[in-house]
Amino acid sequence: MSDTLARLAEVLEERKNAAPDSSYVASLYHKGLNKILEKVGEEAVETILAAKDVAAGGDVDELIYETADLWFHSLIMLAALGQHPQAVLDELDRRFGLSGHAEKAARQPSA
Amino acid sequence: MSDTLARLAEVLEERKNAAPDSSYVASLYHKGLNKILEKVGEEAVETILAAKDVAAGGDVDELIYETADLWFHSLIMLAALGQHPQAVLDELDRRFGLSGHAEKAARQPSA
Amino acid sequence: MSDTLARLAEVLEERKNAAPDSSYVASLYHKGLNKILEKVGEEAVETILAAKDVAAGGDVDELIYETADLWFHSLIMLAALGQHPQAVLDELDRRFGLSGHAEKAARQPSA
Amino acid sequence: MSDTLARLAEVLEERKNAAPDSSYVASLYHKGLNKILEKVGEEAVETILAAKDVAAGGDVDELIYETADLWFHSLIMLAALGQHPQAVLDELDRRFGLSGHAEKAARQPSA
Repeated sequence: MSDTLARLAEVLEERKNAAPDSSYVASLYHKGLNKILEKVGEEAVETILAAKDVAAGGDVDELIYETADLWFHSLIMLAALGQHPQAVLDELDRRFGLSGHAEKAARQPSA
Repeated sequence: MSDTLARLAEVLEERKNAAPDSSYVASLYHKGLNKILEKVGEEAVETILAAKDVAAGGDVDELIYETADLWFHSLIMLAALGQHPQAVLDELDRRFGLSGHAEKAARQPSA
Repeated sequence: MSDTLARLAEVLEERKNAAPDSSYVASLYHKGLNKILEKVGEEAVETILAAKDVAAGGDVDELIYETADLWFHSLIMLAALGQHPQAVLDELDRRFGLSGHAEKAARQPSA
Repeated sequence: MSDTLARLAEVLEERKNAAPDSSYVASLYHKGLNKILEKVGEEAVETILAAKDVAAGGDVDELIYETADLWFHSLIMLAALGQHPQAVLDELDRRFGLSGHAEKAARQPSA
Protein backbone atom coordinates (compact mmCIF):
# COMPACT_ATOMS: atom_id res chain seq x y z
CA MET A 1 0.00 0.00 0.00
CA SER A 2 2.39 2.71 1.13
CA ASP A 3 4.82 3.91 3.72
CA THR A 4 2.80 7.05 4.34
CA LEU A 5 2.35 6.37 8.05
CA ALA A 6 6.05 5.53 8.59
CA ARG A 7 7.20 8.68 6.79
CA LEU A 8 4.66 10.81 8.61
CA ALA A 9 5.85 9.40 11.96
CA GLU A 10 9.39 10.43 10.95
CA VAL A 11 8.26 13.98 10.21
CA LEU A 12 6.35 14.15 13.51
CA GLU A 13 9.47 13.00 15.36
CA GLU A 14 11.56 15.74 13.73
CA ARG A 15 8.99 18.37 14.67
CA LYS A 16 9.72 17.73 18.36
CA ASN A 17 12.93 19.71 18.00
CA ALA A 18 11.31 22.60 16.13
CA ALA A 19 10.42 26.00 17.56
CA PRO A 20 6.76 26.16 18.77
CA ASP A 21 5.83 28.74 16.14
CA SER A 22 7.60 26.98 13.24
CA SER A 23 4.70 24.65 12.31
CA TYR A 24 1.21 23.52 13.31
CA VAL A 25 2.55 20.27 14.79
CA ALA A 26 5.29 22.03 16.76
CA SER A 27 2.70 24.43 18.20
CA LEU A 28 0.43 21.49 19.21
CA TYR A 29 3.31 19.73 21.02
CA HIS A 30 4.00 23.00 22.81
CA LYS A 31 0.38 23.41 23.92
CA GLY A 32 0.51 19.98 25.51
CA LEU A 33 -1.32 16.64 25.60
CA ASN A 34 -4.80 17.96 26.51
CA LYS A 35 -4.84 20.18 23.42
CA ILE A 36 -3.72 17.25 21.23
CA LEU A 37 -6.43 15.01 22.72
CA GLU A 38 -9.06 17.74 22.24
CA LYS A 39 -8.13 17.71 18.55
CA VAL A 40 -8.44 13.89 18.39
CA GLY A 41 -11.94 14.22 19.88
CA GLU A 42 -12.94 17.10 17.57
CA GLU A 43 -11.78 15.25 14.46
CA ALA A 44 -13.61 12.08 15.54
CA VAL A 45 -16.86 14.09 15.80
CA GLU A 46 -16.24 15.82 12.46
CA THR A 47 -15.61 12.40 10.87
CA ILE A 48 -18.87 11.08 12.30
CA LEU A 49 -20.81 14.11 11.00
CA ALA A 50 -19.18 13.77 7.55
CA ALA A 51 -20.12 10.06 7.48
CA LYS A 52 -23.77 10.89 8.25
CA ASP A 53 -23.70 13.49 5.47
CA VAL A 54 -22.26 10.97 2.98
CA ALA A 55 -25.04 8.53 3.90
CA ALA A 56 -27.53 11.35 3.15
CA GLY A 57 -26.00 11.95 -0.29
CA GLY A 58 -23.30 14.43 0.73
CA ASP A 59 -19.69 14.93 -0.32
CA VAL A 60 -17.32 11.95 -0.03
CA ASP A 61 -14.23 14.22 -0.16
CA GLU A 62 -15.25 15.73 3.18
CA LEU A 63 -15.28 12.25 4.78
CA ILE A 64 -11.82 11.43 3.41
CA TYR A 65 -10.51 14.80 4.59
CA GLU A 66 -11.91 14.43 8.13
CA THR A 67 -10.71 10.82 8.45
CA ALA A 68 -7.22 12.01 7.41
CA ASP A 69 -7.46 14.68 10.12
CA LEU A 70 -8.47 12.02 12.68
CA TRP A 71 -5.62 9.67 11.79
CA PHE A 72 -3.15 12.58 11.62
CA HIS A 73 -3.99 13.83 15.10
CA SER A 74 -3.88 10.29 16.51
CA LEU A 75 -0.36 10.01 15.03
CA ILE A 76 0.58 13.28 16.80
CA MET A 77 -0.83 11.82 20.03
CA LEU A 78 1.28 8.67 19.62
CA ALA A 79 4.42 10.73 18.88
CA ALA A 80 3.80 13.00 21.88
CA LEU A 81 3.70 9.88 24.08
CA GLY A 82 6.79 8.34 22.49
CA GLN A 83 4.93 5.66 20.53
CA HIS A 84 5.27 4.64 16.87
CA PRO A 85 2.31 3.81 14.58
CA GLN A 86 3.98 0.48 13.72
CA ALA A 87 2.92 -0.77 17.17
CA VAL A 88 -0.72 -0.05 16.23
CA LEU A 89 -0.35 -1.79 12.85
CA ASP A 90 1.31 -4.76 14.58
CA GLU A 91 -1.68 -4.98 16.93
CA LEU A 92 -4.06 -4.95 13.93
CA ASP A 93 -1.93 -7.64 12.22
CA ARG A 94 -1.96 -9.71 15.39
CA ARG A 95 -5.75 -9.54 15.72
CA PHE A 96 -6.59 -10.30 12.14
CA GLY A 97 -3.81 -12.73 11.26
CA LEU A 98 -2.77 -10.50 8.39
CA SER A 99 0.90 -11.47 8.20
CA GLY A 100 0.74 -11.88 4.45
CA HIS A 101 -2.31 -14.12 4.52
CA ALA A 102 -5.52 -12.19 3.99
CA GLU A 103 -7.08 -15.48 2.89
CA LYS A 104 -6.51 -16.98 6.29
CA ALA A 105 -7.96 -13.94 8.04
CA ALA A 106 -11.01 -14.15 5.82
CA ARG A 107 -11.73 -17.56 7.29
CA GLN A 108 -11.53 -16.38 10.89
CA PRO A 109 -14.99 -15.76 12.37
CA SER A 110 -13.56 -13.44 15.03
CA ALA A 111 -13.08 -10.34 12.85
CA MET B 1 4.84 -0.74 6.64
CA SER B 2 1.17 -0.24 6.00
CA ASP B 3 0.20 -3.11 3.78
CA THR B 4 -1.70 -3.92 6.94
CA LEU B 5 -4.35 -1.34 6.10
CA ALA B 6 -4.69 -2.58 2.51
CA ARG B 7 -5.07 -6.20 3.62
CA LEU B 8 -7.51 -5.22 6.35
CA ALA B 9 -9.59 -3.25 3.81
CA GLU B 10 -9.71 -6.41 1.68
CA VAL B 11 -10.96 -8.47 4.62
CA LEU B 12 -13.58 -5.83 5.46
CA GLU B 13 -14.79 -5.87 1.85
CA GLU B 14 -15.18 -9.67 1.95
CA ARG B 15 -17.16 -9.43 5.19
CA LYS B 16 -19.92 -7.53 3.35
CA ASN B 17 -21.09 -10.80 1.81
CA ALA B 18 -20.98 -12.71 5.10
CA ALA B 19 -23.95 -13.69 7.25
CA PRO B 20 -24.65 -11.11 10.02
CA ASP B 21 -23.85 -13.62 12.77
CA SER B 22 -20.67 -14.96 11.12
CA SER B 23 -18.31 -12.30 12.53
CA TYR B 24 -18.11 -9.08 14.56
CA VAL B 25 -17.65 -6.97 11.41
CA ALA B 26 -20.53 -8.64 9.58
CA SER B 27 -22.80 -7.99 12.57
CA LEU B 28 -21.75 -4.30 12.68
CA TYR B 29 -22.55 -3.87 8.97
CA HIS B 30 -25.92 -5.45 9.63
CA LYS B 31 -26.68 -3.10 12.56
CA GLY B 32 -26.10 -0.13 10.29
CA LEU B 33 -24.11 3.10 10.04
CA ASN B 34 -25.22 4.66 13.35
CA LYS B 35 -23.93 1.67 15.30
CA ILE B 36 -20.60 1.80 13.40
CA LEU B 37 -20.27 5.54 14.11
CA GLU B 38 -21.13 5.00 17.80
CA LYS B 39 -18.18 2.61 17.92
CA VAL B 40 -15.87 5.19 16.23
CA GLY B 41 -16.92 7.70 18.92
CA GLU B 42 -16.53 5.20 21.78
CA GLU B 43 -13.07 4.15 20.65
CA ALA B 44 -11.98 7.79 20.26
CA VAL B 45 -12.98 8.44 23.89
CA GLU B 46 -11.29 5.24 25.11
CA THR B 47 -8.13 6.28 23.22
CA ILE B 48 -8.22 9.72 24.87
CA LEU B 49 -8.64 8.17 28.33
CA ALA B 50 -5.79 5.69 27.67
CA ALA B 51 -3.54 8.59 26.55
CA LYS B 52 -4.27 10.49 29.77
CA ASP B 53 -3.45 7.35 31.76
CA VAL B 54 -0.13 6.88 29.90
CA ALA B 55 0.77 10.51 30.71
CA ALA B 56 0.07 9.68 34.38
CA GLY B 57 2.39 6.66 34.29
CA GLY B 58 -0.12 4.06 33.08
CA ASP B 59 0.09 1.17 30.63
CA VAL B 60 1.26 1.93 27.07
CA ASP B 61 -0.24 -1.34 25.75
CA GLU B 62 -3.72 -0.03 26.55
CA LEU B 63 -3.08 3.07 24.39
CA ILE B 64 -1.86 0.95 21.45
CA TYR B 65 -4.85 -1.36 21.84
CA GLU B 66 -7.40 1.48 21.91
CA THR B 67 -5.76 3.32 18.98
CA ALA B 68 -5.93 0.05 16.99
CA ASP B 69 -9.65 -0.14 17.88
CA LEU B 70 -10.15 3.47 16.72
CA TRP B 71 -8.39 2.91 13.39
CA PHE B 72 -10.13 -0.44 12.91
CA HIS B 73 -13.61 1.02 13.37
CA SER B 74 -12.80 3.99 11.11
CA LEU B 75 -11.80 1.40 8.44
CA ILE B 76 -15.18 -0.32 8.92
CA MET B 77 -16.88 3.08 8.52
CA LEU B 78 -14.98 3.72 5.27
CA ALA B 79 -15.86 0.25 3.95
CA ALA B 80 -19.53 0.66 4.89
CA LEU B 81 -19.59 3.87 2.82
CA GLY B 82 -17.75 2.30 -0.13
CA GLN B 83 -14.44 4.09 0.51
CA HIS B 84 -10.89 2.67 0.61
CA PRO B 85 -8.22 3.70 3.17
CA GLN B 86 -5.82 4.47 0.28
CA ALA B 87 -7.85 7.65 -0.32
CA VAL B 88 -7.09 8.75 3.26
CA LEU B 89 -3.38 7.92 2.89
CA ASP B 90 -3.31 9.82 -0.44
CA GLU B 91 -4.81 12.86 1.34
CA LEU B 92 -2.10 12.62 4.05
CA ASP B 93 0.59 12.29 1.33
CA ARG B 94 -0.83 15.30 -0.50
CA ARG B 95 -0.82 17.48 2.61
CA PHE B 96 2.63 16.61 3.83
CA GLY B 97 4.44 16.20 0.51
CA LEU B 98 5.45 12.69 1.50
CA SER B 99 5.70 11.18 -1.98
CA GLY B 100 9.05 9.61 -1.16
CA HIS B 101 10.56 12.78 0.23
CA ALA B 102 10.23 13.09 3.98
CA GLU B 103 13.17 15.48 3.89
CA LYS B 104 11.17 17.92 1.76
CA ALA B 105 8.16 17.67 4.08
CA ALA B 106 10.43 18.37 7.04
CA ARG B 107 11.25 21.75 5.54
CA GLN B 108 7.60 22.74 5.05
CA PRO B 109 6.36 25.00 7.84
CA SER B 110 2.73 24.07 7.17
CA ALA B 111 2.73 20.66 8.86
CA MET C 1 -33.05 25.07 41.42
CA SER C 2 -33.26 24.70 37.68
CA ASP C 3 -35.24 27.73 36.61
CA THR C 4 -31.84 28.47 35.10
CA LEU C 5 -32.48 26.02 32.28
CA ALA C 6 -35.96 27.44 31.60
CA ARG C 7 -34.69 31.02 31.48
CA LEU C 8 -31.72 30.01 29.33
CA ALA C 9 -34.09 28.24 26.90
CA GLU C 10 -36.06 31.50 26.68
CA VAL C 11 -32.92 33.49 25.84
CA LEU C 12 -31.88 30.89 23.24
CA GLU C 13 -35.33 31.13 21.63
CA GLU C 14 -35.05 34.94 21.40
CA ARG C 15 -31.61 34.64 19.78
CA LYS C 16 -33.20 32.93 16.77
CA ASN C 17 -34.46 36.31 15.58
CA ALA C 18 -31.14 38.09 16.14
CA ALA C 19 -28.63 39.08 13.46
CA PRO C 20 -25.90 36.41 12.98
CA ASP C 21 -23.17 38.78 14.19
CA SER C 22 -25.11 40.05 17.22
CA SER C 23 -24.09 37.25 19.62
CA TYR C 24 -22.22 33.94 19.90
CA VAL C 25 -25.46 31.95 19.91
CA ALA C 26 -26.89 33.82 16.91
CA SER C 27 -23.68 33.13 14.97
CA LEU C 28 -23.83 29.41 15.86
CA TYR C 29 -27.45 29.14 14.64
CA HIS C 30 -26.34 30.82 11.43
CA LYS C 31 -23.44 28.39 10.90
CA GLY C 32 -25.89 25.49 11.10
CA LEU C 33 -26.48 22.21 12.91
CA ASN C 34 -23.12 20.54 12.11
CA LYS C 35 -21.23 23.40 13.74
CA ILE C 36 -23.50 23.23 16.84
CA LEU C 37 -22.98 19.44 17.07
CA GLU C 38 -19.20 19.83 16.65
CA LYS C 39 -19.33 22.13 19.70
CA VAL C 40 -21.35 19.53 21.69
CA GLY C 41 -18.67 16.95 20.84
CA GLU C 42 -15.77 19.28 21.66
CA GLU C 43 -17.25 20.25 25.01
CA ALA C 44 -17.90 16.60 25.89
CA VAL C 45 -14.21 15.83 25.29
CA GLU C 46 -13.07 18.89 27.25
CA THR C 47 -15.35 17.82 30.13
CA ILE C 48 -13.85 14.31 30.07
CA LEU C 49 -10.29 15.72 30.11
CA ALA C 50 -11.17 18.10 32.96
CA ALA C 51 -12.65 15.19 34.95
CA LYS C 52 -9.45 13.16 34.49
CA ASP C 53 -7.45 16.19 35.67
CA VAL C 54 -9.66 16.60 38.79
CA ALA C 55 -9.10 12.91 39.62
CA ALA C 56 -5.34 13.60 39.35
CA GLY C 57 -5.58 16.53 41.80
CA GLY C 58 -6.38 19.27 39.28
CA ASP C 59 -8.72 22.25 39.33
CA VAL C 60 -12.42 21.62 40.07
CA ASP C 61 -13.42 24.99 38.56
CA GLU C 62 -12.30 23.79 35.14
CA LEU C 63 -14.63 20.77 35.41
CA ILE C 64 -17.60 22.97 36.37
CA TYR C 65 -16.79 25.38 33.55
CA GLU C 66 -16.54 22.64 30.90
CA THR C 67 -19.70 20.88 32.12
CA ALA C 68 -21.52 24.23 31.87
CA ASP C 69 -20.22 24.53 28.29
CA LEU C 70 -21.45 21.00 27.50
CA TRP C 71 -24.94 21.63 28.90
CA PHE C 72 -25.09 25.07 27.26
CA HIS C 73 -24.28 23.71 23.80
CA SER C 74 -26.74 20.83 24.23
CA LEU C 75 -29.40 23.48 25.02
CA ILE C 76 -28.48 25.33 21.80
CA MET C 77 -28.81 22.00 19.91
CA LEU C 78 -32.27 21.43 21.41
CA ALA C 79 -33.35 25.00 20.54
CA ALA C 80 -32.02 24.68 16.98
CA LEU C 81 -34.18 21.57 16.54
CA GLY C 82 -37.27 23.17 18.12
CA GLN C 83 -37.07 21.25 21.40
CA HIS C 84 -37.33 22.51 24.99
CA PRO C 85 -35.13 21.26 27.87
CA GLN C 86 -38.30 20.53 29.88
CA ALA C 87 -38.80 17.46 27.68
CA VAL C 88 -35.37 16.18 28.78
CA LEU C 89 -36.12 16.87 32.46
CA ASP C 90 -39.51 15.12 32.07
CA GLU C 91 -37.70 12.08 30.65
CA LEU C 92 -35.31 12.10 33.65
CA ASP C 93 -38.30 12.44 36.04
CA ARG C 94 -40.06 9.57 34.29
CA ARG C 95 -37.05 7.27 34.58
CA PHE C 96 -36.23 7.97 38.19
CA GLY C 97 -39.72 8.47 39.59
CA LEU C 98 -38.74 11.91 40.86
CA SER C 99 -42.18 13.55 40.80
CA GLY C 100 -41.69 15.00 44.26
CA HIS C 101 -40.62 11.75 45.82
CA ALA C 102 -36.87 11.29 45.98
CA GLU C 103 -37.46 8.74 48.73
CA LYS C 104 -39.39 6.51 46.38
CA ALA C 105 -36.69 6.81 43.71
CA ALA C 106 -34.08 5.87 46.27
CA ARG C 107 -35.83 2.54 46.72
CA GLN C 108 -35.90 1.72 43.02
CA PRO C 109 -33.12 -0.66 41.98
CA SER C 110 -33.34 0.47 38.35
CA ALA C 111 -31.43 3.75 38.69
CA MET D 1 -39.15 24.74 35.76
CA SER D 2 -38.34 21.92 38.16
CA ASP D 3 -36.10 20.56 40.84
CA THR D 4 -35.38 17.46 38.80
CA LEU D 5 -31.61 17.99 38.80
CA ALA D 6 -31.46 18.67 42.56
CA ARG D 7 -33.50 15.57 43.36
CA LEU D 8 -31.49 13.46 40.96
CA ALA D 9 -28.25 14.67 42.59
CA GLU D 10 -29.69 13.56 45.93
CA VAL D 11 -30.45 10.08 44.58
CA LEU D 12 -26.97 9.83 43.04
CA GLU D 13 -25.44 10.77 46.40
CA GLU D 14 -27.40 8.05 48.16
CA ARG D 15 -26.28 5.46 45.59
CA LYS D 16 -22.68 5.91 46.76
CA ASN D 17 -23.45 3.83 49.81
CA ALA D 18 -25.24 1.09 47.88
CA ALA D 19 -23.87 -2.34 47.00
CA PRO D 20 -22.26 -2.41 43.51
CA ASP D 21 -24.86 -4.82 42.16
CA SER D 22 -27.86 -3.01 43.67
CA SER D 23 -28.36 -0.54 40.80
CA TYR D 24 -26.94 0.69 37.49
CA VAL D 25 -25.49 3.82 39.13
CA ALA D 26 -23.92 1.87 42.01
CA SER D 27 -22.28 -0.48 39.50
CA LEU D 28 -20.91 2.47 37.47
CA TYR D 29 -19.38 4.05 40.62
CA HIS D 30 -17.80 0.68 41.36
CA LYS D 31 -16.30 0.36 37.86
CA GLY D 32 -14.58 3.70 38.33
CA LEU D 33 -14.17 7.09 36.68
CA ASN D 34 -12.92 5.87 33.26
CA LYS D 35 -16.07 3.80 32.77
CA ILE D 36 -18.27 6.78 33.78
CA LEU D 37 -16.38 9.06 31.36
CA GLU D 38 -16.66 6.46 28.56
CA LYS D 39 -20.43 6.62 29.08
CA VAL D 40 -20.40 10.47 28.92
CA GLY D 41 -18.54 10.20 25.60
CA GLU D 42 -20.81 7.47 24.23
CA GLU D 43 -23.96 9.40 25.11
CA ALA D 44 -22.56 12.60 23.53
CA VAL D 45 -22.01 10.70 20.26
CA GLU D 46 -25.47 9.08 20.43
CA THR D 47 -26.99 12.54 21.04
CA ILE D 48 -25.14 13.94 18.00
CA LEU D 49 -26.33 11.05 15.80
CA ALA D 50 -29.92 11.46 17.05
CA ALA D 51 -29.75 15.23 16.27
CA LYS D 52 -28.58 14.50 12.70
CA ASP D 53 -31.46 12.01 12.33
CA VAL D 54 -34.01 14.59 13.59
CA ALA D 55 -32.67 17.10 11.03
CA ALA D 56 -33.24 14.41 8.36
CA GLY D 57 -36.84 13.89 9.46
CA GLY D 58 -36.24 11.27 12.15
CA ASP D 59 -37.70 10.67 15.59
CA VAL D 60 -37.59 13.55 18.12
CA ASP D 61 -38.15 11.16 21.05
CA GLU D 62 -34.77 9.54 20.36
CA LEU D 63 -33.06 12.95 20.66
CA ILE D 64 -34.77 13.69 23.98
CA TYR D 65 -33.90 10.21 25.26
CA GLU D 66 -30.21 10.49 24.29
CA THR D 67 -29.89 14.04 25.68
CA ALA D 68 -31.37 12.76 28.97
CA ASP D 69 -28.75 9.99 28.94
CA LEU D 70 -25.99 12.57 28.34
CA TRP D 71 -27.13 14.84 31.18
CA PHE D 72 -27.67 11.85 33.46
CA HIS D 73 -24.18 10.48 32.98
CA SER D 74 -22.65 13.96 33.40
CA LEU D 75 -24.50 14.14 36.74
CA ILE D 76 -22.99 10.77 37.74
CA MET D 77 -19.55 12.14 36.76
CA LEU D 78 -20.09 15.23 38.95
CA ALA D 79 -21.26 13.08 41.88
CA ALA D 80 -18.31 10.70 41.50
CA LEU D 81 -15.97 13.70 41.79
CA GLY D 82 -17.83 15.19 44.76
CA GLN D 83 -19.47 18.02 42.80
CA HIS D 84 -23.11 19.21 42.78
CA PRO D 85 -25.00 20.26 39.61
CA GLN D 86 -25.91 23.55 41.34
CA ALA D 87 -22.33 24.69 40.70
CA VAL D 88 -22.88 24.15 36.97
CA LEU D 89 -26.20 26.03 37.02
CA ASP D 90 -24.54 28.85 38.99
CA GLU D 91 -21.87 29.09 36.30
CA LEU D 92 -24.58 29.29 33.61
CA ASP D 93 -26.40 31.97 35.65
CA ARG D 94 -23.19 33.91 36.04
CA ARG D 95 -22.46 33.86 32.32
CA PHE D 96 -25.86 34.81 31.11
CA GLY D 97 -26.97 37.18 33.87
CA LEU D 98 -30.03 35.04 34.52
CA SER D 99 -30.54 35.84 38.21
CA GLY D 100 -34.26 36.41 37.71
CA HIS D 101 -33.82 38.72 34.78
CA ALA D 102 -34.08 36.94 31.44
CA GLU D 103 -34.99 40.31 29.94
CA LYS D 104 -31.61 41.71 30.88
CA ALA D 105 -29.81 38.67 29.49
CA ALA D 106 -31.71 39.05 26.25
CA ARG D 107 -30.09 42.43 25.79
CA GLN D 108 -26.55 41.16 26.33
CA PRO D 109 -24.67 40.57 23.08
CA SER D 110 -22.28 38.15 24.73
CA ALA D 111 -24.54 35.09 24.82
